[in-house]
Amino acid sequence: MVKVGIIGATGYAGGELVRLLLQHKDAQIVWYGSRSYIDEKYANVYRNFFELVEESCLDDNLEELAKQVDVIFTATPQGYLASHLTEEILSQVKVIDLSADYRIKDVNIYEKWYGIEHKSPNFIPEAVYGLCELNRDKTNDKVRLVANPGCYTTCSILTTIPMVANHVIDPNSLIIDAKSGTSGAGRGAKVVNLFCEVNESMKAYGVATHRHTPEIEEQLGYTYGDDVVISFTPHLAPMNRGILVTAYANLEKVQYPDGHMDYPTEDMLFDIYHKAYDDEYFVRVLDKGMTPETKWVEGSNFVDVCLKVDERTHRVIMMGALDNLVKGAAGQAVQNMNLLFGLKETEGLELVPMFP
Amino acid sequence: MVKVGIIGATGYAGGELVRLLLQHKDAQIVWYGSRSYIDEKYANVYRNFFELVEESCLDDNLEELAKQVDVIFTATPQGYLASHLTEEILSQVKVIDLSADYRIKDVNIYEKWYGIEHKSPNFIPEAVYGLCELNRDKTNDKVRLVANPGCYTTCSILTTIPMVANHVIDPNSLIIDAKSGTSGAGRGAKVVNLFCEVNESMKAYGVATHRHTPEIEEQLGYTYGDDVVISFTPHLAPMNRGILVTAYANLEKVQYPDGHMDYPTEDMLFDIYHKAYDDEYFVRVLDKGMTPETKWVEGSNFVDVCLKVDERTHRVIMMGALDNLVKGAAGQAVQNMNLLFGLKETEGLELVPMFP
Amino acid sequence: MVKVGIIGATGYAGGELVRLLLQHKDAQIVWYGSRSYIDEKYANVYRNFFELVEESCLDDNLEELAKQVDVIFTATPQGYLASHLTEEILSQVKVIDLSADYRIKDVNIYEKWYGIEHKSPNFIPEAVYGLCELNRDKTNDKVRLVANPGCYTTCSILTTIPMVANHVIDPNSLIIDAKSGTSGAGRGAKVVNLFCEVNESMKAYGVATHRHTPEIEEQLGYTYGDDVVISFTPHLAPMNRGILVTAYANLEKVQYPDGHMDYPTEDMLFDIYHKAYDDEYFVRVLDKGMTPETKWVEGSNFVDVCLKVDERTHRVIMMGALDNLVKGAAGQAVQNMNLLFGLKETEGLELVPMFP
Amino acid sequence: MVKVGIIGATGYAGGELVRLLLQHKDAQIVWYGSRSYIDEKYANVYRNFFELVEESCLDDNLEELAKQVDVIFTATPQGYLASHLTEEILSQVKVIDLSADYRIKDVNIYEKWYGIEHKSPNFIPEAVYGLCELNRDKTNDKVRLVANPGCYTTCSILTTIPMVANHVIDPNSLIIDAKSGTSGAGRGAKVVNLFCEVNESMKAYGVATHRHTPEIEEQLGYTYGDDVVISFTPHLAPMNRGILVTAYANLEKVQYPDGHMDYPTEDMLFDIYHKAYDDEYFVRVLDKGMTPETKWVEGSNFVDVCLKVDERTHRVIMMGALDNLVKGAAGQAVQNMNLLFGLKETEGLELVPMFP
Repeated sequence: MVKVGIIGATGYAGGELVRLLLQHKDAQIVWYGSRSYIDEKYANVYRNFFELVEESCLDDNLEELAKQVDVIFTATPQGYLASHLTEEILSQVKVIDLSADYRIKDVNIYEKWYGIEHKSPNFIPEAVYGLCELNRDKTNDKVRLVANPGCYTTCSILTTIPMVANHVIDPNSLIIDAKSGTSGAGRGAKVVNLFCEVNESMKAYGVATHRHTPEIEEQLGYTYGDDVVISFTPHLAPMNRGILVTAYANLEKVQYPDGHMDYPTEDMLFDIYHKAYDDEYFVRVLDKGMTPETKWVEGSNFVDVCLKVDERTHRVIMMGALDNLVKGAAGQAVQNMNLLFGLKETEGLELVPMFP
Repeated sequence: MVKVGIIGATGYAGGELVRLLLQHKDAQIVWYGSRSYIDEKYANVYRNFFELVEESCLDDNLEELAKQVDVIFTATPQGYLASHLTEEILSQVKVIDLSADYRIKDVNIYEKWYGIEHKSPNFIPEAVYGLCELNRDKTNDKVRLVANPGCYTTCSILTTIPMVANHVIDPNSLIIDAKSGTSGAGRGAKVVNLFCEVNESMKAYGVATHRHTPEIEEQLGYTYGDDVVISFTPHLAPMNRGILVTAYANLEKVQYPDGHMDYPTEDMLFDIYHKAYDDEYFVRVLDKGMTPETKWVEGSNFVDVCLKVDERTHRVIMMGALDNLVKGAAGQAVQNMNLLFGLKETEGLELVPMFP
Repeated sequence: MVKVGIIGATGYAGGELVRLLLQHKDAQIVWYGSRSYIDEKYANVYRNFFELVEESCLDDNLEELAKQVDVIFTATPQGYLASHLTEEILSQVKVIDLSADYRIKDVNIYEKWYGIEHKSPNFIPEAVYGLCELNRDKTNDKVRLVANPGCYTTCSILTTIPMVANHVIDPNSLIIDAKSGTSGAGRGAKVVNLFCEVNESMKAYGVATHRHTPEIEEQLGYTYGDDVVISFTPHLAPMNRGILVTAYANLEKVQYPDGHMDYPTEDMLFDIYHKAYDDEYFVRVLDKGMTPETKWVEGSNFVDVCLKVDERTHRVIMMGALDNLVKGAAGQAVQNMNLLFGLKETEGLELVPMFP
Repeated sequence: MVKVGIIGATGYAGGELVRLLLQHKDAQIVWYGSRSYIDEKYANVYRNFFELVEESCLDDNLEELAKQVDVIFTATPQGYLASHLTEEILSQVKVIDLSADYRIKDVNIYEKWYGIEHKSPNFIPEAVYGLCELNRDKTNDKVRLVANPGCYTTCSILTTIPMVANHVIDPNSLIIDAKSGTSGAGRGAKVVNLFCEVNESMKAYGVATHRHTPEIEEQLGYTYGDDVVISFTPHLAPMNRGILVTAYANLEKVQYPDGHMDYPTEDMLFDIYHKAYDDEYFVRVLDKGMTPETKWVEGSNFVDVCLKVDERTHRVIMMGALDNLVKGAAGQAVQNMNLLFGLKETEGLELVPMFP
C-alpha cells in the first residue's frame, strides 16, 4: 500500500487526486494538506467525499510529510515547490509535482515565462517530465521527482507529436487553438470565473503569452531534433471539464515508395497515429471522419485523437480531447505514481468516461 | 460471472448500465439490445465506449436472450415489457425492469396514470419493488422479476419515508417539488429537449399529472399504514444529471417523555433519519444546516438527504439529491442485480462522486 | 429628460439599470457610482457598454449626487441607504432603492430577518412599496422614496396575490418553492458562485430563513386582511437569469351561484387571474395547460403566470416566471421611475424577450 | 412603414427577425410563414411573443406574398429560394435571403460545396452580398435581391479583412478557428443537438469542408485582388448564442517610412483596424490587450474585434465576436432592409448587449 500525502488538496486538481486515489486499491491517502483550510474537515470542503473521507485538512509541512508517506503530490501554485523542496525531503520521499516548477529544463525559459525566480534549479536535471506515453522508460523506482505535465500541454503534445516525430509536418507552422473547461482556472474566488461571467461566453486569453507554450515547444523540439516555435492560444469555454485541441500544420512532402516526393495522404498519417498509439491504453485514435469531443472522455484518463487532411491547403488538422483534471492533471499524476512504484500503469485509472 | 443482456442499451439509462457494468468485476455484458441501432457498433452510438466495447447492437429478442444470459435489464418504454414478458422467459432468466410496468401493484392505477392497457398483469404480484433500502429482504435469488423504481420516486421516497414511517408528519400534507436534469427526458430527438430550448431555462411540467405520483403514494402508503395522497411537481433544470427533491410537510405533534404533546424538534427528526440510514451505505444524512446539492452525488449511487424544521409554520422541509441515471436508474438496477445474485450489495457501485 | 444617478452601478442590477436606461428615450445617466471602481472606465467593468458609455465610475457621495440629478437609484447592500439617507437628500431628489431597507414597514421585522439595526426608520413610513401593479396609484410625483421589491418577492406576489385577495386559497397553507438564476447572488467573488460550483448543480439555500419571506407575507397580509405566514424556499439554478416560482396552496371552498359551497374550478381561478391582469401590460396570464418558463421572459419586464388545479388534493399550483434582473430589479425600478416622473409606465420597457 | 413577410419564421433566425422587427419603428410584419406550423399561433411556437404577436403561421406562397409586402425575408434551407424565386416575384418585392443561395458568384463553387444544383443561377449576378460594412454603397433602393451573409462568414471577414486589404498578412496563411453557440445548428430535432449531448462538450465539425469557407475566400479574394485559400474550422460550444473567431496569419513585411522592410508592429495593425472601423457603428475595435467575448455582444448587432501580434512567430492573432442570430443573421438582414428602404442604417438595431 503506497502511503500518499497531498499538498494543495483543496484545489480542483487536489480534489480529483482524492477521487482517484480513493478508488485505487494500492494507495492510501494519509495527509490532506491545505494551508487555507487547516483543521477543517476535508469532506466539508468537497462534500462529494461526505462519509468517504473523515480526515481534516493539515498544513503543508513537507519535512514532516516526508517522514510519513511514500509519495507527495504537490498541487500548488507555481514557485511553491521550488521554494520548499530540499535534498533531505527528496532523500526520504518521492515527489510528483503538478505545478510547472520542474517541467522546463532551461531555467531561463521558466523564469521568463513565469516571471518568477526559480529557487531550486539544482533539482531540475533529475526531474522526469511525466508524460508517461513519452517517458515511461525513465519513470521508475529510482526517480525521486516527477514534473507532471500541464493540461493543455498533455493534450497538445499527444495530439501532434507523432507527426512531428515522423517529419510529416513542419513543426514551426504549428498553430494550436485550445479550448478549456473552467476548472482549469482553479478554485480561486475571482470575478472572471463566476458562473454568470463564464456561462454563455467564450473568449481567448493569454494570447501569445500562455505559459504552456514553452513546455510544448520543448517536448516537441526533443522529438523533432531541433528548436520548435509554435503558436498556442487557449480559450475559456462554458463547461466544467475538458480540453479540446485543434492543431493546424503545413504538411511536408515525403518520399513515396516509387521515389517521388509528395504530400502524405490521410491514410499515411493515420498509420503514423496507429503506430504511435495502438499499444497505448489511454490514447484512443478515433476512426477517420470522427472528431474528438470532450464529453466522450469526461471523468476518464483517456485522450482521444484524430486528424483530417485538407488537400486544398496542404495542411493537416489534428484534434485531441482529454479531461483536464484527469489525464491533464490528477490522472496522469496517478499514472506516474503507478510507474514509480512498479504498479500496473493503469491501476485505478481504468475509469469509463461518463456520458451524458 | 453474471451474464447480462440489456434491452434498450442505447437510451441514457442503458448507456449508464453499460458504464457501471464494465466496471463491475462479477458481471459481463453479452447482449447490447437496441432495436433502432441493430448491427451498428455500440461504441459508435456512445463514443465514450470507444475501444472499450467492440460489440454491435442486437435486436430485442427476449426469448433468445433468456437462453443466453442470467439477467436481462430492460430500459424500455412503458408497456414494452408488459407486452413481451412470458412465463417461459421468466423461467429461464431474471428480469430487472427499469420501466414502470411492474412497479404499481394495482393495475387500475397503472392503466389510469399511464393511459395504456397492461398486457401481463399476472406477473405484477411476484414483482419485487426494487428500492433496495426498503425491500432488501425480499430481493434474493428466488426473485425472478424486479421493478426498478423511478428516478423521482427513489429520491422522493428515501427523502421522506422515515418521517412518514414514524408518524411525525402528516403524509397527506406532503408537497414534493422536484427538479431534474435533462437526461431524465431521454435521448429522443425532440425540439423541447434541444440545447437551446433547455439552456438558461426552468419550467414545471406534468403538473398534478406526473406518473411517478402514484408510485410514491403507494410506497409511502405501505409504510404509513393507510392511503396517502400527495402533491408532486417535477421541473426541468438546465443540467445533464441530478434530481433534487424539496419536500414540505406539516409536522404532527408527538408525545414527549414527560407525556405532553408537542411538535418534534429538528434534533428528533435527525435522530429518525440517522436511525433509518446510518447503516445504509448509499444514503448519506448530511449534517444540520447543510443542503443537498446534485453535484455532490453526480456519477455515484449516493442519495444525500437533510432536513430543516420551520418553527414558524410547523412544517419540515426535507431535501434529497441523487444522480437520476445512477441511484435513479442504472445504479439501483445493478444494486438489485447484486442482491439477486448474492453478490456484495455495493459491488461495482462504490463510485466516488465527481466534482466539479 | 430625467437626470439619473446610480449608486452601485457595477453590481449586476446596476449594470442592468444602465442597459435599460441607455435605451430609454427620456432618461440620461449622469453618475455611475461604484465605490470599488472609482475612476475606472465603466465600460471596462462591463464591456458590453464599450463605446456606449464613456464615463468613468464615481464615488457614492449622495449629498453631491442629490444636487446633480433628478433621481438616484441605489443598488447597494442592505443597510447602506438606511445609513446614508437624510432629509436634505430627500428634499432635493427622488430615491428608488433596490435594496430592502425600506420595504418592510415594521422595523422590528426588518431588524430580525436582516440582523442589522435600521439607521433611519423615520423614512420607512413615507416609502412606497414599488410593486407597480399593486401600488401604481400611490407612486406619483409627490413620492420621494420608493422601496423597489425583491426579485423573489415580485414573482411570488404577482403569482399568488389574486388568489389571496379573492379568498379562494388559504394563504397560511401557501408554500412557495422558488428557483433562481445565479445573477441573483450578485457579482461578489465567492467560491460558491464560481462557474464550476454552480454548473450542473441545484440546491436549496436559506431554507426557512430567507429574507424575502417577511416581505411576501407583509404584502399578502395587506391584501388578505390578516397576518399571513408562509413557507418560502429559494433554490440556486445553473442559469444566469430567471426566477421560477411554484406555489402550492389549499383551495378554500367558495359559494357557487346556486348557494352550495365547493372548491373553485380551474376556470374560476383563471377568471380571477384575468380580472387581475388583463389590463396589466407586464403580467401575461398564460393559457390553460401552459407552464411558465424563465427563458420566455428573459431580458424583458414580463411576468408570466399560470395555474393548475389538482382535484385529488384540492390544491392549486400557481406558477410564475420573470427575469430577476429586469422585473425583479432594474426593470421594475425604471417602471417606478416612469410613474414618479409622469412618463408612460412602459417607456423603455417594451422589450421583447430574447429566445433562445 | 415597410411591410414585411418572413418565410421560415419558426427557425431560430426567423424568430430573431420577429424580435428585432417588433422593436423596429418603421417595419410591420404581416406574414409569418412556416410550412411546418401552418395555422398554428405563432406565439405558441415561440412563447416569448405571447400577447405580442397574435397572428398564426401562414404557408410559404412567395407569389402571394410578393403582392402583399414590400420585402420578404427568407430564412429557409439551402436551395429553397433558388428553386422558387422568379422574375415576377422580384419585379414586385425585394428579397433578403438569409440562406446561401445567392452569396457565391461562381455557381460551380456553390454547387460543389453545397452538393445541390442551383435552380436559378440567372439571379446570382444581381444579388448584392449584404455584408453592409463592405457593400453599403451597393445596397440601395434599386436592389431587388440581397444575399445576407453567413454567421461564421460575417465574423471571419470583419475580423480579418482590413489586414488582407492592407496586405500586411499573407491571406493564404490564414487559419480561422471558429466557435459557435448551438443556435447556429438550427431548431431541427436532432439527437446531436439535444441538451445532454451539447452541454459540457466541445467538438470541431465540418473540418476542411464547411460551406462557409468558399464564401469567406471569395470576399477576401475581392479585397486582396487575387484568389485566397484558407483553412476554416467551426466548433460547437455549449452556449445558445455567439460566434468567436480566432484567426491566425503570417505577417508580411511592409515598407517603413525610412524605406526598410520589416514586419508591421501591433500599433500599425491597430491603426489599420481603426481606419477601417472607427466610422462603423456596429464594429467595435477593442483596446490593446483585450480579447473579444461572445457574452459582451449578446443580443446586439455589434461585432467586437481585436488583435495581438506574436513577435516570436511573426504571426498576428485576430479575434472577433458577434451574436450569430443578430449580426450573424437577423440583425444584419434588418440592417440590409434599412439600407434598401433608405432608413437610418442602425434603425431598430441600437440594441445594448445583455449581460450577464
